[in-house]
Amino acid sequence: MLGRLNHVAIAVPDMKAASALYRDTLGARLSEPQLLPEHGVTVVFIDVGNTKIELLEPLGENSPIATFLEKSPAGGMHHICYEVDDIIAARDRLKSQGARVLGDGEPKIGAHGKPVLFLHPKDFLGTLVELEQAG
Amino acid sequence: MLGRLNHVAIAVPDMKAASALYRDTLGARLSEPQLLPEHGVTVVFIDVGNTKIELLEPLGENSPIATFLEKSPAGGMHHICYEVDDIIAARDRLKSQGARVLGDGEPKIGAHGKPVLFLHPKDFLGTLVELEQAG
Repeated sequence: MLGRLNHVAIAVPDMKAASALYRDTLGARLSEPQLLPEHGVTVVFIDVGNTKIELLEPLGENSPIATFLEKSPAGGMHHICYEVDDIIAARDRLKSQGARVLGDGEPKIGAHGKPVLFLHPKDFLGTLVELEQAG
Repeated sequence: MLGRLNHVAIAVPDMKAASALYRDTLGARLSEPQLLPEHGVTVVFIDVGNTKIELLEPLGENSPIATFLEKSPAGGMHHICYEVDDIIAARDRLKSQGARVLGDGEPKIGAHGKPVLFLHPKDFLGTLVELEQAG
């Protein structure tokens, strides 16, 4: 069921400083910042060849990453995103095995324009897991 | 400078349960457990096609992940590993820009039999970064 690692997300308090670190210090290729007000984040993608790193900065009030950054003001790894061929089948299989899907359980459209779901970190080794419809 | 994402490491309190979760619930392909007493961990690699997830369980006294699991008993994302073409050149470039290398600053041999270094999380957005010699 589990497909490719689509991205690893890192929450950052300051996108300008985080982008400079990856671009200038680490010599990586970055996308332009993308504002996603409906998700409460600004994102920058870093192409590392085989997958992507997603930098997340809070946007607006009630950003879903604000609490995370209160606990980890310097930033930190926030979630990991796997691709699945059929997000509805994957969700139903996981739910039947007792895993909890966050929110109302229905896929939302993510940063790549594809349906995504988040799974409860308590059911996945303390790791917030995002599933994204592949293809 | 920054190359492919070699792996994302997840610290887990119970390798048996963690392996079952990824194998049975998520349907992933796992390696056999590998005991690395000199690193104080048992590792299992999960092949997700484009990169790997590394499950880490403490092994022996003074495991470097014991403190992490005390703070996060359910487990969690522990570090991220990037490949670099020349680990010594990468280290020297990063040090010249003020980044701190953990330990004595000399590469050690990692789980794949290649030289690795760890960078201070405070210099990398709260994320423990491992560099591994590519190729």
